[in-house]
Amino acid sequence: MGVNENVQKPLDQLSAALAPEMDAVNALIRQRMSSRHAPRIPEVTAHLIEAGGKRLRPMLTLAAAKLLGYDGPYHIHFAASVEFIHTATLLHDDVVDESSQRRGRPTANLLWDNKSSVLVGDYLFARSFQLMVEPDNMRALEILANASATIAEGEVLQLSAAQDLRTDEDVYLQVVRGKTAALFSAATEVGGVVAAAPADQVKALFDYGDALGIAFQIVDDLLDYGGATQTIGKNVGDDFRERKLTLPVIKAIARANAEERAFWTRTIEKGDQRDGDLEQALSLLARHGAMQDARNDALKWAGTAKSALQVLPAHPIREMLNDLADFVVSRVA
Amino acid sequence: MGVNENVQKPLDQLSAALAPEMDAVNALIRQRMSSRHAPRIPEVTAHLIEAGGKRLRPMLTLAAAKLLGYDGPYHIHFAASVEFIHTATLLHDDVVDESSQRRGRPTANLLWDNKSSVLVGDYLFARSFQLMVEPDNMRALEILANASATIAEGEVLQLSAAQDLRTDEDVYLQVVRGKTAALFSAATEVGGVVAAAPADQVKALFDYGDALGIAFQIVDDLLDYGGATQTIGKNVGDDFRERKLTLPVIKAIARANAEERAFWTRTIEKGDQRDGDLEQALSLLARHGAMQDARNDALKWAGTAKSALQVLPAHPIREMLNDLADFVVSRVA
Repeated sequence: MGVNENVQKPLDQLSAALAPEMDAVNALIRQRMSSRHAPRIPEVTAHLIEAGGKRLRPMLTLAAAKLLGYDGPYHIHFAASVEFIHTATLLHDDVVDESSQRRGRPTANLLWDNKSSVLVGDYLFARSFQLMVEPDNMRALEILANASATIAEGEVLQLSAAQDLRTDEDVYLQVVRGKTAALFSAATEVGGVVAAAPADQVKALFDYGDALGIAFQIVDDLLDYGGATQTIGKNVGDDFRERKLTLPVIKAIARANAEERAFWTRTIEKGDQRDGDLEQALSLLARHGAMQDARNDALKWAGTAKSALQVLPAHPIREMLNDLADFVVSRVA
Repeated sequence: MGVNENVQKPLDQLSAALAPEMDAVNALIRQRMSSRHAPRIPEVTAHLIEAGGKRLRPMLTLAAAKLLGYDGPYHIHFAASVEFIHTATLLHDDVVDESSQRRGRPTANLLWDNKSSVLVGDYLFARSFQLMVEPDNMRALEILANASATIAEGEVLQLSAAQDLRTDEDVYLQVVRGKTAALFSAATEVGGVVAAAPADQVKALFDYGDALGIAFQIVDDLLDYGGATQTIGKNVGDDFRERKLTLPVIKAIARANAEERAFWTRTIEKGDQRDGDLEQALSLLARHGAMQDARNDALKWAGTAKSALQVLPAHPIREMLNDLADFVVSRVA
């Protein structure tokens, strides 16, 4: 518990430093998630958007803009756009993954239906582009349009790659850059663009978001197998049961002998899982040091994120972003 | 047969007049529907986009721009964007409606799965905004962002309105403006904007597309019950079986006595359909002149579309658009 108290500080600090801006983002989100004609739209959206998500992505946009001295008003619009894109992808992901729980609550596709999740996701995606029109900044809009395409591409790639034992670390990185890192890096980059920062600083913000997003996803993969130290709570084995080729498994497969390979083929590719298979998977991950290696990758990406920040001007928010990179990997450190 | 030969002329004329531009649009579509990493994206997209759709919507953009003297290059981008938005909505519609046939072929959700249709739709939607960035015309981008929101809103509204006997002609018009007319009117309006036309001409193009789209949808509703004269082939009764409150039914319900109302409540609201119900529905539509009245509405909207054109300069393409409005309703005239 002591660890958790410590490590939550960077997010709390960012929340405090950006409180007025986040209030403005939340007000804009509530205003724009309405619909004159279709009351189901704000119902479905509110269910997800008010379920206590941390607003990490829009906070990155606000942080980037503020640390570069921008004081508004358009970082608010882009931060809200980023959150709308994120919410739209969550709605569609839950349909695609046939999920029944998200942020500890039943998913929208379960409470309403898949139709509502698909169409309300489409609405929020369109709303995000409407929001982006107002600041009249085509470069910022382009960044978020590109990120949206990369996200969808990563998700489609994952459809075919997730259960294919030929998926290697390069393909994994491609998928992760799509489904997770693209929106992180777009969120930080767009904060720099709206602040009219010089090119090297905008690039540094992109690199920070990219590396942070990759670290974030690797940590998520690790926690699903109990974390490197198996001490942190989360239902262990969801990814295994859903037959997802995540980084630790990819590493273990690369080092597998013939018998182990047959195990992965049966459980992941063919989906024929039996009692004791999860335990066997955990033991193979341990035998090959796959968890430790993936953890080291996460730490390396957090280091890349922190290095990128060095190009940016000294600022309390820069230090918070630095600590945030440590925080993200602290759950498996 | 004589009628069909005649009435296809306006579309053929437009296709011929816009052949080089449509070739450029098709080349751009093929180029941008590709994906470096996820081969399923062009597979799914090609299945739909090369199934012989008429490309009516992108043709409207090209026609509007050309009749106002614009000779490129950016009407090509917006026309391709319009087709991508249309294709994305078709992919998602087929998931929402659980359809198994589209343009005479199995739907993508049947050939691949719902996941692919949702995610490839998202990809094409994002690609459409990427395409819109290039011409650097924020007003045109805004029109298509607004249309995208209106489309999704109309579809969500339809989810609740389609089987609710309280749905009146006002709500019907709202749904139709969303799910059909919004993209027609955006397609024509954006053609005017890219041509830098004066405001009254841009407004006329919007009004033409809006009225043409509404006429188009009412005709579709009519044909589903066999058309006003019940001579034109199409599987009769799909909307009835899918319990959709379309315009003829809304008119018949407004004039229903208690016994007839009970019939519609049972068959549409409750979905309890028996042998002979479709025949009974057709007989109620006939008894109240609902088909004839809906047909008159379609003709009225075609007239509105044609009137709007009068603001535009005389041009062979203006005459083709005029004839197109007649053609759309000729299937039930």
